[in-house]
Amino acid sequence: MNAPNESLYPQSSAPLPNSERVYLPGTLHPSVQVPMRKVSLAQTRLPNGSFEQNESVLIYDVSGPWGDPTFTGTVEEGLPPARAEWIRARGDVEEYDGRGHSARDDGYLSEAHAAATVRRVGQSFAGSAPASASRRPLRGSAGHPVTQLWYARQGIITPEMEYIAIRENQGLERLRDKLSAEASRDSLEHQHPGTMGRSDAPEVFRKFPQALPKFITPEFVREEVARGRAIIPANINHPELEPMIIGRNFLVKINANIGNSAVASSIEEEVEKMRWSTKWGADTVMDLSTGKNIHTTREWILRNSPVPIGTVPIYQALEKVSGRAEDLTWEIFRDTLIEQAEQGVDYFTIHAGVLLRFIPWTAKRATGIVSRGGSIMAKWCLSHHKENFLYTHWDDICDIMAAYDVSFSIGDGLRPGSNADANDAAQFGELEVQGDLTKRAWAKGVQVMNEGPGHVPMHLIHENMMKQLEWCHEAPFYTLGPLTTDIAPGYDHITSAIGAAMIGWYGTAMLCYVTPKEHLGLPNRKDVKDGVIAYKIAAHAADLAKGHPGAQYRDNAISKARFEFRWEDQFNLSLDPDTAREFHDETLPSEGAKAAHFCSMCGPHFCSMKITEDVRRYAAEQGITEETVLEQGMESKSREFIEQGAEVYKAPV
Amino acid sequence: MNAPNESLYPQSSAPLPNSERVYLPGTLHPSVQVPMRKVSLAQTRLPNGSFEQNESVLIYDVSGPWGDPTFTGTVEEGLPPARAEWIRARGDVEEYDGRGHSARDDGYLSEAHAAATVRRVGQSFAGSAPASASRRPLRGSAGHPVTQLWYARQGIITPEMEYIAIRENQGLERLRDKLSAEASRDSLEHQHPGTMGRSDAPEVFRKFPQALPKFITPEFVREEVARGRAIIPANINHPELEPMIIGRNFLVKINANIGNSAVASSIEEEVEKMRWSTKWGADTVMDLSTGKNIHTTREWILRNSPVPIGTVPIYQALEKVSGRAEDLTWEIFRDTLIEQAEQGVDYFTIHAGVLLRFIPWTAKRATGIVSRGGSIMAKWCLSHHKENFLYTHWDDICDIMAAYDVSFSIGDGLRPGSNADANDAAQFGELEVQGDLTKRAWAKGVQVMNEGPGHVPMHLIHENMMKQLEWCHEAPFYTLGPLTTDIAPGYDHITSAIGAAMIGWYGTAMLCYVTPKEHLGLPNRKDVKDGVIAYKIAAHAADLAKGHPGAQYRDNAISKARFEFRWEDQFNLSLDPDTAREFHDETLPSEGAKAAHFCSMCGPHFCSMKITEDVRRYAAEQGITEETVLEQGMESKSREFIEQGAEVYKAPV
Repeated sequence: MNAPNESLYPQSSAPLPNSERVYLPGTLHPSVQVPMRKVSLAQTRLPNGSFEQNESVLIYDVSGPWGDPTFTGTVEEGLPPARAEWIRARGDVEEYDGRGHSARDDGYLSEAHAAATVRRVGQSFAGSAPASASRRPLRGSAGHPVTQLWYARQGIITPEMEYIAIRENQGLERLRDKLSAEASRDSLEHQHPGTMGRSDAPEVFRKFPQALPKFITPEFVREEVARGRAIIPANINHPELEPMIIGRNFLVKINANIGNSAVASSIEEEVEKMRWSTKWGADTVMDLSTGKNIHTTREWILRNSPVPIGTVPIYQALEKVSGRAEDLTWEIFRDTLIEQAEQGVDYFTIHAGVLLRFIPWTAKRATGIVSRGGSIMAKWCLSHHKENFLYTHWDDICDIMAAYDVSFSIGDGLRPGSNADANDAAQFGELEVQGDLTKRAWAKGVQVMNEGPGHVPMHLIHENMMKQLEWCHEAPFYTLGPLTTDIAPGYDHITSAIGAAMIGWYGTAMLCYVTPKEHLGLPNRKDVKDGVIAYKIAAHAADLAKGHPGAQYRDNAISKARFEFRWEDQFNLSLDPDTAREFHDETLPSEGAKAAHFCSMCGPHFCSMKITEDVRRYAAEQGITEETVLEQGMESKSREFIEQGAEVYKAPV
Repeated sequence: MNAPNESLYPQSSAPLPNSERVYLPGTLHPSVQVPMRKVSLAQTRLPNGSFEQNESVLIYDVSGPWGDPTFTGTVEEGLPPARAEWIRARGDVEEYDGRGHSARDDGYLSEAHAAATVRRVGQSFAGSAPASASRRPLRGSAGHPVTQLWYARQGIITPEMEYIAIRENQGLERLRDKLSAEASRDSLEHQHPGTMGRSDAPEVFRKFPQALPKFITPEFVREEVARGRAIIPANINHPELEPMIIGRNFLVKINANIGNSAVASSIEEEVEKMRWSTKWGADTVMDLSTGKNIHTTREWILRNSPVPIGTVPIYQALEKVSGRAEDLTWEIFRDTLIEQAEQGVDYFTIHAGVLLRFIPWTAKRATGIVSRGGSIMAKWCLSHHKENFLYTHWDDICDIMAAYDVSFSIGDGLRPGSNADANDAAQFGELEVQGDLTKRAWAKGVQVMNEGPGHVPMHLIHENMMKQLEWCHEAPFYTLGPLTTDIAPGYDHITSAIGAAMIGWYGTAMLCYVTPKEHLGLPNRKDVKDGVIAYKIAAHAADLAKGHPGAQYRDNAISKARFEFRWEDQFNLSLDPDTAREFHDETLPSEGAKAAHFCSMCGPHFCSMKITEDVRRYAAEQGITEETVLEQGMESKSREFIEQGAEVYKAPV
């Protein structure tokens, strides 16, 4: 849900500076072409006046064709269905006439009502559809699930799996020879080995060891998916999608929420927000639209999205019963699931763990039930004095998901809404049920991740990860933050980035972003970007702590650029080159300053980085390596030092 | 060092909304009057239509007299010397003629040069001084240190110590009766007991248990200071200061850096930045000025600062030798220390741990030496092939500090400048020396804290805290961040707030802020505020995780306001009420919306918080407590549930 009235259109397609789109090809599947953003770097001027070329850096790129300057498609056409041939080649799907699209799907009483509203509010896309929406839907036809989990269990390495292996390696394979020529894993210069093996590692790493290989292979992807430790959200009706993986032994992913709301925003804005989020790095996008035009908005988003799209189907079902939770039925919900599965939604949040017996436990909480899906189901349960129909129909739901390869994101409807309520009986009661539901979904061949909190003070975060791994059998965890304090509305991207980084390190596979507007209003363009960047920071900090080689590589490249005063390289390697450059130029606007060997902190006269450079240059002038000269210097100094010892330690005057 | 050209003047004195300045009186020392900001709250409308008053919240307030609307003083006069009578009453200080102030102290060649420069650049304050600067300096005269450490060891509870005890309790003592009427520490509603006693607590808590009392007593303050586990930075020549404490068993504090730089900014701006930082909650301020007017800038800051002021004296000493590190001498440094001690600086960063033998270890680093003080000393050591004169003159330095009660902040000149260099031999070599220097300072009766990094990935943060506690004998740790990744210039307030919150939880006593401009340029007004707020978040998140009762109390109050749609109370209790209100009003600008029982996320039609309220209202309407009705409902539902069991668990269709 995002704030309206902002023209976002052109900005998302502006390329990032000094970047080039390259594609890394598959070996098992030659049609696999994995996009990366290649950032070229300047040369380093060595103290002796010669130059050394710095290796370009390949960056994991989720912007899809929109990030390729040679792509000429339009939003009106939709993205090309690049994955369609892989899906059909498996020979286990059929085309059929879908359920179609009615005015009610968009929250209107009739086609006439819809048309009248479109005329009144003048939304050009409303009721319309991109050209690619005319495809007939696919579903499984071979009597088995058409899920990546099912293929993985059969020992099949799908093109999606190979794509992901290449993508996760972030182009480091091209350095494989260089790296393997050196001895150990630490051969990545200045590589910290990560948490594993440290005696002070948090307990979770002892009970659930990481298995982070130096290079991800397609077979490793397959194994992790087969074990349920990772998912590849990829609906067979979303062929525009570029495959990605969510699991503890891969890069930590982030999700951005978009969606219009009852308070209004337009379809164009939502499509642009999806593109804008992925430009800055959102790995998946959830469309949390409410109010009118839900179906049409989703159609436009899906046909233009290179990343997996998640939804909370109960939101749309609630619109179909005019917002009266007590009027919800299994049939309406089921119809909504099929509607969205046919459109191509890649994962569904389903709050099936909100059981009737947990609801009373929330009455004494500081902040009751704060999840929208959770409170819808709580209201339904209390109104009917019946068990949650999502729970009682779980296996029916699984059957639908299996036929389209929609992944579960099992909702946490009883997540804490304040740190006072963190880790309480209601929250953990639901988590245990999530574990049971996970096993039942696996038995049906459906991929699963579990949603988690919310608001949790730092010392209670670890327990969330431990219990989730234990009770949910290592299925991927997907958390909202958590926010580590409640006192900073306006800055909850920060309060939650702290919790997100920590739980990401402990093993959470995907982090749902929080924007600065959380608790206050609808995020605008700047808020969406601020939320995405804060979460890219959290995810990357977690990857570094886990010891992911690709993560450390980028840090090393930017640190070297910073140290060598290659300002442009420092900007271009950063998460947000535009802001980095702008902030620098506020203080030192001239172009010359970006070539200068000093910065605004100390000015040209004295600079700490410059002094270290002086030290190294001095060493080089002696004709020997810097280390040797310093050690030699040290030896003679050592003697001097010992001679002076009496003075150094003598009693003060 | 901050960006110039912004008129900051009037904003810092605008009061925060719905806030009142109150003073809590001392008992041991009736002259103790501790300022707090009292935020009054609205009533809660109960489901039965009646109203319940919400207790006002007292907030720790560091803005000094500037935050008191009845204060009529001006910057030109300086703040009243409220602490002067306490200092003199101890009978162990003497007034004397100070060393005076020369043009050279401000970086000019002569008085004529200074006057000419002032005419040319037109800085009204340059070369001037506030009215209160005419006081003659004090120093110890009784043959013993005049430090809070010395008094604490004698068993003396100073007024400063009582002031601190009251301040740390944040007014919770007024609820003592209410709270002690209930059974346990958990009687603070929804109070999490904090890390201690948790089986998954990080190792540091097992080796160095926290001792966080429910209420801080003056005697507890004295004990902690006597043991060296906490410091009260309070120079006898800074009587304007309102006492505060830095230690592991107290609220986590934050520092904001200000100061003009070689690239220029004016004295007026620096004074205003100090006021602006403290308005948002900076517990101490470091004046890191370089270039011209260092002495005069500091004089204006000190005479107007209610918080402790720290400096890095080597910066000014370097200006006195025209920026040539090799020309520094002990005599120039010593003179600078006395100059600043007479002015009233409360703590000095001194890089005495940068030993000659460590310097070669930095040559192979990714980012060499990045601390300005560290590289100045490295350059001096290499130029002279001699041991660091700050180290060889340590006891002389201690004698000066003891005579004015200036606290040490032992610098970490070899801190890592990238996460690749974190926890390396150079960094930890220096930390061990910091520990030796700590003991020697204690032997001289001087208060000590230790500075720490810097750039550290999450999994290496814990080791920093462990080693510091072990090697530095539990002296307070004071860290810069640490930044948990290097790839986000422009957002380093966030990369570092993550590390700061974690290390604060582990036991760091004070966190030095990082602004969004770090690595790029000089912070402006917005950057300073963003840095302070990010660090208030980190410090508060740490306090919550440690189980500080006062921290949890504020979170509970704001969560209750949020849940009850008391929008104004939510804004007013937040760290930044202005931004919270502004963000809310962007989406729902009308005044009515702030009284509305819904928010912009779900709109008026459906709201998850509203549903929980409905649940509770339903319970109240039955004439019994909400919990009972739900439990009763549960019992009958239980039976129903069991009867339906077959359906719930039956095999899916």
